Amino acid sequence: MSSVLYNEIFEQPTAIQRILTEGRSATEALVQTAKTADIRFIALAARGTSDNAAIYAKYLLQILCGVPVLLTAPSVHTLYGATVDYSKGLVIGVSQSGAGEDICEVIAQARKSGAVTAAITNTENSKLAQTAEHVLPCRAGVERAVAATKTYTTTLAIFAQIAAIWSGNSAFGEALNNVHDVAQTALETSEPQVQALAKTLYHAEKMLTVARGPHLSTAIEAALKIAETTGTTMQSFSSADLLHGPIASIAVRTPCLLFAPAGKSAADMEELVGKLATRNARVIRLSPNADADVTLTTPGDELLSPLTDILPAQLLAYHLTVTRGLDPDNPRGLSKVTVTR
Amino acid sequence: MSSVLYNEIFEQPTAIQRILTEGRSATEALVQTAKTADIRFIALAARGTSDNAAIYAKYLLQILCGVPVLLTAPSVHTLYGATVDYSKGLVIGVSQSGAGEDICEVIAQARKSGAVTAAITNTENSKLAQTAEHVLPCRAGVERAVAATKTYTTTLAIFAQIAAIWSGNSAFGEALNNVHDVAQTALETSEPQVQALAKTLYHAEKMLTVARGPHLSTAIEAALKIAETTGTTMQSFSSADLLHGPIASIAVRTPCLLFAPAGKSAADMEELVGKLATRNARVIRLSPNADADVTLTTPGDELLSPLTDILPAQLLAYHLTVTRGLDPDNPRGLSKVTVTR
Repeated sequence: MSSVLYNEIFEQPTAIQRILTEGRSATEALVQTAKTADIRFIALAARGTSDNAAIYAKYLLQILCGVPVLLTAPSVHTLYGATVDYSKGLVIGVSQSGAGEDICEVIAQARKSGAVTAAITNTENSKLAQTAEHVLPCRAGVERAVAATKTYTTTLAIFAQIAAIWSGNSAFGEALNNVHDVAQTALETSEPQVQALAKTLYHAEKMLTVARGPHLSTAIEAALKIAETTGTTMQSFSSADLLHGPIASIAVRTPCLLFAPAGKSAADMEELVGKLATRNARVIRLSPNADADVTLTTPGDELLSPLTDILPAQLLAYHLTVTRGLDPDNPRGLSKVTVTR
Repeated sequence: MSSVLYNEIFEQPTAIQRILTEGRSATEALVQTAKTADIRFIALAARGTSDNAAIYAKYLLQILCGVPVLLTAPSVHTLYGATVDYSKGLVIGVSQSGAGEDICEVIAQARKSGAVTAAITNTENSKLAQTAEHVLPCRAGVERAVAATKTYTTTLAIFAQIAAIWSGNSAFGEALNNVHDVAQTALETSEPQVQALAKTLYHAEKMLTVARGPHLSTAIEAALKIAETTGTTMQSFSSADLLHGPIASIAVRTPCLLFAPAGKSAADMEELVGKLATRNARVIRLSPNADADVTLTTPGDELLSPLTDILPAQLLAYHLTVTRGLDPDNPRGLSKVTVTR
């Protein structure tokens, strides 16, 4: 178990606790600037794993803060040379390395047009950090594994802290301050289950991940993690979108990982179980219930589940890689920093 | 060739021409209201094929009009009961049937919070049309095939007309007025090529579609069309996102449909050909070039390509269905109207 990926997965509870403490004043300063500027929308610029963190933020900030949130399309600027008026927005670039030219370009444009700008990055002296007005470092320590884990969950923690301060929702804020403990329990509880599950997935060439609402970020990030480490074909869907067409292409025996944490999406996910069963798909439940294949540990607020539910999925990616005799630290044909323009 | 789907595919040039003529005054009224209201962002609410049309609009309206565009997350309202302040926005619901409760809920919320609201729908007396302040009907005639085609391209045409009027870009507006002719040529030119291609894809259980920028809508909609009619596992990617991890899971011989219309995304797509070749994937080029597997017909402006490039993909979905002995008008387990909450 001397894999870099494995070790970084288990560093997450500590990393989450650290960023929530050490990052708090920077987060407060950003929220205050944004509120003073009377911003009317939040725009997020990200790629890959960071983009999945942005999907979490899209739901979270709309639900808790009531501000419309958009995910930018960087090629609008980099390829098509568009000038977008971001002047009434808070525009946040998210990048582990802070090296993505396209993300920097969005932030530069936004700053020029008068927006409040911020960078969430694990690399404090990166180009992205230098481009944005506010910098919120992940403080996760160097991430050596190609598959990002601790930079993902610390980014989620930063977004959750923004939402807590912005909304003034103290129950959510308190639950957030305990989430690192829940994360520790989630890792310990789920690992034996996930290890057994990985063995049964040895031959699976294709899998689905499904969730709804803020938990969609978990489904999409789980799919990316498993795809990049194991080479499995992964598709991820919102349960609502799945019913609009793609369900027609689910073949017999396809493993479908259903993320059904306690809360408002649970009933929809339960309904989906029946629909997948009639197609003879293999339904794998991740939930806090007794009939779960993988037990999810429940944080104090449903909206924090994405910080803890991704952990068993990361462990599944790791154990499936090992089960298949692959190297979890060196996925076929990937490198740590992907620079797109 | 008496399939409903096949006939509706060929109705599109006429339907596009019709909506651009008959719909113009309603589009003008909407743009004038939005400009008078000094809106700072545009929000789009849609599911399935309509959501793919919204992806086109996201790029188009940002590039040509410089307004930030977001895709809403309906469950924020329907499941999580959030109140979002859309007051400085133009919020457009897109739904062929106009029956989706979640889309109606977003529009109702937006209207209540003081936004300018509009519905793009093929059903003029639908709940969605009654909920929004402005109604832009697709005027595509009843769409009987489960797989939407003419409501997709007429929705794109409406968005293109909004962009033309909003931006005052007369070259784009002129090119738009000729796009139905280009669409007719695209259907005629590509069909024999697509028919031959379908035969070679008989055994393909999985395919990828890739594009970049505004053409991403084509890749995603092509994947949905082929998935729902043929049951093939489809994945679709922006070429930039594909390089951030998922490229690791592309297996030998996987057919990769690369949409590379003339214009600013072409160089990126060409670069990708080499990267896919080293993985021994099967690269299928859709482009206007001599080496294309399927020839794309080029409209007068690159940003109109999504209206014509989807046509060969729809034909591919149809011919692959027929080649495999399936019924194109009755995809396994789907119905025309999917109501999600």
